[in-house]
Amino acid sequence: MIKIKRALLSVSDKTGIVELAKNLQKYGCEIISTGGTKKVLEDAGIEVIEISKITGNPEAFGGRMKTISFNIESALLFDREKDKKEATALKIEPIDMVVCNLYPFAKVKEQNADFEILIENIDIGGPTMLRAAAKNFKYVATITNTNDYAQIIAELNENEGAISYETRKNLMRKTFNHTADYDALIATTMDEFSEIRSLRFHFTDGKKLRYGENSHQEGFFYREIFSQNSLSEMEILHGKELSFNNIADIQSAIDAVKNLENFAVAVVKHNNSCGLASGKSQRKVFEMAWNGDPISAFGSILAFNKKVDLETVEFLCLNDENKQNRKFVEVIVAPDFSTDALAYLQFHKNLRVIKFDPQKSKVQKDVKFLNGAILVQDTDEELYSKMDCVTNRKIEIEKQKKLIEFGLIAVRMVKSNSIIIVRELADGTFQQIGMGAGQPNRLISTKLAIEKAKENFANEYEGKDLEKYFKGQFAKCFLISDAFFPFADNVEIAAESGIKTIVQPGGSMRDKSVIRKCNELDVTMIFTGLRHFKH
Amino acid sequence: MIKIKRALLSVSDKTGIVELAKNLQKYGCEIISTGGTKKVLEDAGIEVIEISKITGNPEAFGGRMKTISFNIESALLFDREKDKKEATALKIEPIDMVVCNLYPFAKVKEQNADFEILIENIDIGGPTMLRAAAKNFKYVATITNTNDYAQIIAELNENEGAISYETRKNLMRKTFNHTADYDALIATTMDEFSEIRSLRFHFTDGKKLRYGENSHQEGFFYREIFSQNSLSEMEILHGKELSFNNIADIQSAIDAVKNLENFAVAVVKHNNSCGLASGKSQRKVFEMAWNGDPISAFGSILAFNKKVDLETVEFLCLNDENKQNRKFVEVIVAPDFSTDALAYLQFHKNLRVIKFDPQKSKVQKDVKFLNGAILVQDTDEELYSKMDCVTNRKIEIEKQKKLIEFGLIAVRMVKSNSIIIVRELADGTFQQIGMGAGQPNRLISTKLAIEKAKENFANEYEGKDLEKYFKGQFAKCFLISDAFFPFADNVEIAAESGIKTIVQPGGSMRDKSVIRKCNELDVTMIFTGLRHFKH
Repeated sequence: MIKIKRALLSVSDKTGIVELAKNLQKYGCEIISTGGTKKVLEDAGIEVIEISKITGNPEAFGGRMKTISFNIESALLFDREKDKKEATALKIEPIDMVVCNLYPFAKVKEQNADFEILIENIDIGGPTMLRAAAKNFKYVATITNTNDYAQIIAELNENEGAISYETRKNLMRKTFNHTADYDALIATTMDEFSEIRSLRFHFTDGKKLRYGENSHQEGFFYREIFSQNSLSEMEILHGKELSFNNIADIQSAIDAVKNLENFAVAVVKHNNSCGLASGKSQRKVFEMAWNGDPISAFGSILAFNKKVDLETVEFLCLNDENKQNRKFVEVIVAPDFSTDALAYLQFHKNLRVIKFDPQKSKVQKDVKFLNGAILVQDTDEELYSKMDCVTNRKIEIEKQKKLIEFGLIAVRMVKSNSIIIVRELADGTFQQIGMGAGQPNRLISTKLAIEKAKENFANEYEGKDLEKYFKGQFAKCFLISDAFFPFADNVEIAAESGIKTIVQPGGSMRDKSVIRKCNELDVTMIFTGLRHFKH
Repeated sequence: MIKIKRALLSVSDKTGIVELAKNLQKYGCEIISTGGTKKVLEDAGIEVIEISKITGNPEAFGGRMKTISFNIESALLFDREKDKKEATALKIEPIDMVVCNLYPFAKVKEQNADFEILIENIDIGGPTMLRAAAKNFKYVATITNTNDYAQIIAELNENEGAISYETRKNLMRKTFNHTADYDALIATTMDEFSEIRSLRFHFTDGKKLRYGENSHQEGFFYREIFSQNSLSEMEILHGKELSFNNIADIQSAIDAVKNLENFAVAVVKHNNSCGLASGKSQRKVFEMAWNGDPISAFGSILAFNKKVDLETVEFLCLNDENKQNRKFVEVIVAPDFSTDALAYLQFHKNLRVIKFDPQKSKVQKDVKFLNGAILVQDTDEELYSKMDCVTNRKIEIEKQKKLIEFGLIAVRMVKSNSIIIVRELADGTFQQIGMGAGQPNRLISTKLAIEKAKENFANEYEGKDLEKYFKGQFAKCFLISDAFFPFADNVEIAAESGIKTIVQPGGSMRDKSVIRKCNELDVTMIFTGLRHFKH
């Protein structure tokens, strides 16, 4: 415990400073201060020692020199045991606390200040005091964040004006993080002015996961320090700890539903959404998303974009007497759950029920780590730059726009080369009914998507002429491609199955022959102008 | 231009300091110094002003107080125009240069120093001087890196002891990067001591790429600041600028070949290796890698693990009169190219020829960026924890070990669920002959791999009984799965094609029924104990 007998307060953000000072004074602490802080404290009736009384120097050079001095930094830095005699001989009296939050470089930068003003807003005296005091945390407390005042005041009151070693150590840690963040921003800003692009990231609160993607790899989950709505804020309402792969899949699942207006559900397996649906009934949408790939849906990660109700989750049949009917999934994430839905989901011991609003997922930069390097890009937000019908066979684009948009949202969440088949059901629900992912050859993705759609049609059809049913359904479906068709062969395969509408960015050298093939086979083709590769 | 009339030299790394001081003195510059630096300079016959003469204070508290003083920081910080009169009145003489490289916190940390020693190695005076001088870069030069001495000496000699504004501005930028990096390391270290896991990354020299994964996304490529062997060191020997997707694929391609001892080639498309081979002849290996998927290989990224010779690249037929025979690829990366191989590759205008040694790719952490959060894991290095033959049908594992290892290297580079089929050719070349990638349902990956292998067998077979050839080839092939088989159905499909050996990690609830199926169908199964998911 160190009793705070003298404290130095010099803050740009004056929030709460008066109350902190009052609480310090209550236990006999002397307050040293400077400039604006001094005025605020004196106006509140607090007795303050002007810093120049301690430094022995005048405030000089338009305020550039206020605190830096042999006397102040000695008072912060000397070892209260080893250096005691020397300090007495040099007439240095200890300062036990520094409260300082530095010139507001970040704020000034946000206001697009010019170079000169930015330079003026680089604090020199503040970091010096803070770093000196933090180095000597064994005896000195450093406070850099107004959010910490309440806890410090509580501790002062509890300990009659003293602060514990543990608190001082933690404040030291925070101080070096504060000065590191401060200089990080200055450094990247100065780089910018020299036309050097630099990036600094700071992640904290790393949690060790059971393991990484595989059990022989260690895995950790960190929060970005200044991020709002971090995925790390996910609330586990039920179930065991999330795994590395769970977390990665949750991100993909919420990104698949976050831009859909109606009720939407994504079914993600191995980072691809094998099921996606949106519409006016949550239960129906869930069923239709599930039916996009009812085999792979087992063990999947589900994301909902709206509060989940009981009727919806009852589709999982978690308390069905016949265990075969129970649908096992790994994770359900949603902005919220009704009380009865949550109670119902708890039937399933191993299921993780996660509260997180997909709308909060607003990451704007996509970063790929490589060997000693990174690739950084904007996230893929724009869906299309045009919707041009390029074939003789036409559709009413305005009427079908929502379905096409749904298809583009679906296709951009699937690993390239990706082909998606979507349809609109009688009640207006949009459903991904076939998906082909991650193939080096686009033709195979097309085949996979068609095959999956056929399987799904067969599951839902009870009549006798299955082939006819396929054709009828495919005629209503739209086939969406994440990138252009290099050859006409994809059109042939699609047309053969009965697909009449294809949506793709266009832009191939062989667009003409692709369009010719569409015309020959009476297929509509829409060019969107934007590719959606995702690797 | 600022003539350096007084310089303050205080360095922990003494490399080159004498020469710098001599070059300063040559033009009449006074040298101020302290402690160890002063001794080194005086031993070299350089006249030095002891810093206490300037500070007016003694060195105090076991060296904790040496430089920090009203006089030193004023001399660095005052505005040479606006504050001139005030400085004269206060008897402050300007200091025009600070050379300082801070207490070696990083070095001490590397030596696993204890907490007390680390704290002692936090420099307070150094960063204060450097930051003060950098803020006043309009008049002061700051040097933090011994690597910069040569350039500074050259400039001093060129300008008769003066340093230009541009240089001072650049030194300022470097200084704030230096103090930011310094405090970053202190902060993460102090976090560690409080059992908080934090990570700070610093990337620089960002290059704007034409675009990101797609043309509507901006893309950039950055180098990690302290990384050795960064992928950004790739040397473009021929061809146009690399694209975002090229760079990502290059990383995958070099990771696929870097652990293979013999000649190895990877053919990567959309971040999956659709072809991979290794063996004693580079040309043969290239052909066999290409033949893993000769359709997708068009437009692919190729990585070689050894210097590339002419005979090998002639397989691309780049100057074939029949343009149809020319094999178009996007990128070839290799540790080196023979002169004639490089000359040959230049026939292809749009091909990028890149010099980078895959062995240099030693990234140990894999980082996934999410919404305001990251997942961090060790890279997947270990191939297997065991090689247990779990079936009645056996193989000589020792004899087949190299092929199994090749298959595991192949499978871990392919997106999950992944199934790979590999074989050993008569001359000992290992070839990936079939690949199924990125499927939510493992069964489909198995089917894709088998289908691809059949296509490839058909390409190489000229006889009449294709089905028999399939069976004969498959009997020699090993099927490798990145994760366990959840059901026995994969075994059935593999056995039906003629595959006799399956390698998988094991660990499913239904391992017993999977093994039973193998025994029933006379298939060998090896359990490796390690999964290789890659998403």
